[in-house]
Amino acid sequence: MKPRREEVELAFRGLRDRIVASLAALDGGEFVRKTWERPGGGGGEMSEIRGGLFEKGGCNFSAVHGERYPTVPEGQANAADEALGIRAPTPAEVGGKPFFATGVSLVMHPRNPFVPVVHMNVRYIEAGDAAWFGGGTDLTPFAPFDEDTAHFHETLRKTCGQARYERLSRWARDYFFIAHRHSERGVGGVFFDYLRASEESFAFTKAVGDAFLPAYVPIVEKRRETPYGEAEREKQLRWRGRYVEFNLIYDRGTLFGLKSGGNVEAIFMSLPPLVAW
Amino acid sequence: MKPRREEVELAFRGLRDRIVASLAALDGGEFVRKTWERPGGGGGEMSEIRGGLFEKGGCNFSAVHGERYPTVPEGQANAADEALGIRAPTPAEVGGKPFFATGVSLVMHPRNPFVPVVHMNVRYIEAGDAAWFGGGTDLTPFAPFDEDTAHFHETLRKTCGQARYERLSRWARDYFFIAHRHSERGVGGVFFDYLRASEESFAFTKAVGDAFLPAYVPIVEKRRETPYGEAEREKQLRWRGRYVEFNLIYDRGTLFGLKSGGNVEAIFMSLPPLVAW
Repeated sequence: MKPRREEVELAFRGLRDRIVASLAALDGGEFVRKTWERPGGGGGEMSEIRGGLFEKGGCNFSAVHGERYPTVPEGQANAADEALGIRAPTPAEVGGKPFFATGVSLVMHPRNPFVPVVHMNVRYIEAGDAAWFGGGTDLTPFAPFDEDTAHFHETLRKTCGQARYERLSRWARDYFFIAHRHSERGVGGVFFDYLRASEESFAFTKAVGDAFLPAYVPIVEKRRETPYGEAEREKQLRWRGRYVEFNLIYDRGTLFGLKSGGNVEAIFMSLPPLVAW
Repeated sequence: MKPRREEVELAFRGLRDRIVASLAALDGGEFVRKTWERPGGGGGEMSEIRGGLFEKGGCNFSAVHGERYPTVPEGQANAADEALGIRAPTPAEVGGKPFFATGVSLVMHPRNPFVPVVHMNVRYIEAGDAAWFGGGTDLTPFAPFDEDTAHFHETLRKTCGQARYERLSRWARDYFFIAHRHSERGVGGVFFDYLRASEESFAFTKAVGDAFLPAYVPIVEKRRETPYGEAEREKQLRWRGRYVEFNLIYDRGTLFGLKSGGNVEAIFMSLPPLVAW
């Protein structure tokens, strides 16, 4: 059974508020909020920080609707798993149908190279008669520490349960992959899509969103005072290029947003503040 | 009639040598040359400068061959013009056929925001029984000056002749377009592809390559001493993001290279040295 749209929006706004408050406190700086309207229907609220700890970061909420859902992108063969309630709708089921989409999307780019970049997203989509949740979170450290990776994954494993964690962390390894560099974007996390809408999947998606702060904040606290020099800073700027490459070449959400006339400023909140090639 | 491959390679290497020598003299710095081999056959020579005038720039030569030409990308409806000898081959004619490709590709990113970014490419491709030339050059100023734009286009108009210039400059406006920003990448130039191989089209392609220095160098000389401050530098770094967006999201050559296992370092020579979002 589909949840009520208003309920999902309320939950997502609440998640956004809790995350923004926690990360602002962690940084000591402030998120600036900007709203935008989508000509076709709906809009969003961007919250951006340019802080000391977080050189750039954004946490965006959006809720949009329209008359025609774009055809489902290719490469979804992966996305069927009846036991977990996952099935990608066919283009015939959803393509060109009225749709509604709401979500929270976050990327944080810390200044200190030893504090990992992080991404989190939860989303709910209705198209035609189909309705599903998607989301995930992944950690991208410049210099990975095994204990940080273990903490991040362990938090997600507890949230997801063993079976779901195994499936969704494998999905993250496949998804957050920079093919032309033959390497993962970072140390992974979880990723899911097309999780059939129900009370249970709504609760699960909220749980993934709520797992973000306990998965990430302890790592930030542990690494934020790590000293670094010019050499590491330069390497960090070059390494950030990989993040741009992933988002602009492979990320479905980014490309979907850009090609469907989404808000460019909100979409590019995910890009690092300063990058070298 | 197809030209001999060796003749084209020789002409392209000569062009690369002349350009590299002129731009190095202009900068006062040096290009560093690196060679790479393509596992599937052939390879290339990158020439990269990290100089004073040119914060980063590259001029790459490559000549590769393989057993299977990838299917022609979509969106070529535009590419038929019998009067000019332009016709995109069909996938059936070239897809999966043995191929040979050689070219010179250049992008220069000046440090001074008032010196425009420039791109130039010439290429020759054989696939199955088809053989064609392609190429072009376009100017991307941070702060456009009408007289510079006029000089650049006038040099190309003289090289191409009026009819060809009109067609190829229109093609450049269509091609170097950043759809999600609803704007051209810069002030245009010329772009062409699928120009049937012949003595004449070989000569034309060489002429476009040779037009690059007289089209660009006078603009560099005029603008290189223009004073600028921190504010302009910051704006320049953000503006460079558009170049990255174009190359990673839309540019056929970049995407073809990345997705077909090309040399990542050579491909990303086109990306700016430092970029802000």
